[in-house]
Amino acid sequence: MPIEFELIERIAAVFPRPEGVWEGIGDDAAVLDPGRFDLVTMDTLVEGVHFRSDLSTAEDVGWKSLAANLSDIAAMGGGPGAFFLSLALPDPPDLEWLEGFWRGMRQAAQELVPESFDVSAGGGDLSRTTGPMVITLSLMGEASPAGPVLRKNAVPGDRIVVLGDPGLAAGGLVVLESDQLDEDQFKELVAAYRRPRPHVREGGLLGLYGIPSAMIDTSDGLIQDLGHLLSSSQVGAQIEAFQLPIAPELAALEEAGAGQVEQWLLGGGEDFCLVLTVPPARMPKLWDMARQYDWKVSDIGEIRSPEEGLQVMGLDGEPIKREITSFRHFEAT
Amino acid sequence: MPIEFELIERIAAVFPRPEGVWEGIGDDAAVLDPGRFDLVTMDTLVEGVHFRSDLSTAEDVGWKSLAANLSDIAAMGGGPGAFFLSLALPDPPDLEWLEGFWRGMRQAAQELVPESFDVSAGGGDLSRTTGPMVITLSLMGEASPAGPVLRKNAVPGDRIVVLGDPGLAAGGLVVLESDQLDEDQFKELVAAYRRPRPHVREGGLLGLYGIPSAMIDTSDGLIQDLGHLLSSSQVGAQIEAFQLPIAPELAALEEAGAGQVEQWLLGGGEDFCLVLTVPPARMPKLWDMARQYDWKVSDIGEIRSPEEGLQVMGLDGEPIKREITSFRHFEAT
Repeated sequence: MPIEFELIERIAAVFPRPEGVWEGIGDDAAVLDPGRFDLVTMDTLVEGVHFRSDLSTAEDVGWKSLAANLSDIAAMGGGPGAFFLSLALPDPPDLEWLEGFWRGMRQAAQELVPESFDVSAGGGDLSRTTGPMVITLSLMGEASPAGPVLRKNAVPGDRIVVLGDPGLAAGGLVVLESDQLDEDQFKELVAAYRRPRPHVREGGLLGLYGIPSAMIDTSDGLIQDLGHLLSSSQVGAQIEAFQLPIAPELAALEEAGAGQVEQWLLGGGEDFCLVLTVPPARMPKLWDMARQYDWKVSDIGEIRSPEEGLQVMGLDGEPIKREITSFRHFEAT
Repeated sequence: MPIEFELIERIAAVFPRPEGVWEGIGDDAAVLDPGRFDLVTMDTLVEGVHFRSDLSTAEDVGWKSLAANLSDIAAMGGGPGAFFLSLALPDPPDLEWLEGFWRGMRQAAQELVPESFDVSAGGGDLSRTTGPMVITLSLMGEASPAGPVLRKNAVPGDRIVVLGDPGLAAGGLVVLESDQLDEDQFKELVAAYRRPRPHVREGGLLGLYGIPSAMIDTSDGLIQDLGHLLSSSQVGAQIEAFQLPIAPELAALEEAGAGQVEQWLLGGGEDFCLVLTVPPARMPKLWDMARQYDWKVSDIGEIRSPEEGLQVMGLDGEPIKREITSFRHFEAT
């Protein structure tokens, strides 16, 4: 029996057919229950680009590939469901690595996803490649009955709120790439890089209660992703970076001379925080929810008219003029 | 502006939001019209494995990546709709190649898909890679009101029917890989390899009229794919290979000493023929449809009890004992 089919049987065993999928792995296409899923996201991780096998275990990579997609569904204010996974692997595939990968995905599904959702495999594809591994995951989800939360509906006057701790993952990568720094001293940062925790429950509840006018997750860095939201909504914004939480380990990392907190906060990628815009009248409800569920929420600024562009006050309260470096998928030509 | 966003704008221009997609490219996830799509397939093409840039143009690769997915939806008896595309590309990306790729996909959508369906981009992802290009396409579709056609419902007594010309693509690859053979002499074979024509309309009509009890497309070779259908349905089969059409160019290729027709017919990959099982009472309707729409249909055998396994009569009418070599994604260990 070719190993491809053994692998497919293994995936089907680890990730049994989820709710909402009537016919899963093993046919030409999966068959969904009609009307169940109305959100689709797709994210690709490339070895050496999105992860480094010397810095991340197979479990970390499995976790991260699901986490990135979960974050996208959360940013729509919806709940996650069936995923479709394409793996391009070396030939022969590293079966031990693969078992770790499944384990990491499984852990992410168990730890990050509320019990009311069933995240598992609906189908996918396996291929061999002569180059780095390429992992493409497409995750389906269900929008809230209140409707999906898009990027394009922010209006001047809306508050800008960050849910989560920006900059931790960027700090973690700095620690891992350094020969000097002690991983044990920066455990929280390293964990944030290796096992990012997207706000799946939070995004779903925000969508359910119709709190945000617009929302995005921060995969490329806070300023860059906020920029996408502003440009979709055709608005400007004023941001006060000093309203953001600064984790003690991030401050310690700056003190160790490894870089600047401000840069990590505003430009660091892969945090999977949620950035939402909230009409002022809904802010009290948001604060209620934050207290009730113990969310880390920061009110960092306001949506302005498009003419005002994006103005960012730094940690020192002064306007930032220089550009924030953030993750680029391709270098600009 | 980073080139990634230019590329995304270009994709959105070439492939405008399709019917059934309420919010497409440009948010964290696409938003589908509820209840529109209930089929999902995913296929990956890896440079050097599924295509060779010296044998296939960018247009050919774009065509083939959509064709492979269209064939999967056709094999469910459904109609195609929104696709999600992940491209892992070298950095900097070859923009000319990409334009060719879009053109090929566009051509496939226009030439292969009946007008009643709207195949275009709902979303996707762009990444850079240091290795060969990896193209993952996930295509959604709509099952027929009569229900999706699965692999698992064939029963003993059903006829086994092939729609299309198996072996042509395999012959085309032989011609392209050879230094001796004249491409002009084998135009049909080369075209079948470069621009396979899955049976999108045929699959949809077969599903609509509820003709097949089970169906699969031949991407890995007739015998191997039939084997998947038999194993899903837990049945055996008797096949008469001599009932299959033999294209004159395929016979000429054997005469030129380049291989064996029987091998190409039974083991050749990437043909995207449909193999269907049909209860005898529905065969007259199938023959009617074949005449009406000018389909190439071959009745090649019968579903048997599982104990009989798969028995194949070769072109000479004698049972084939040796194994049919077919495309393997990974070598067996």
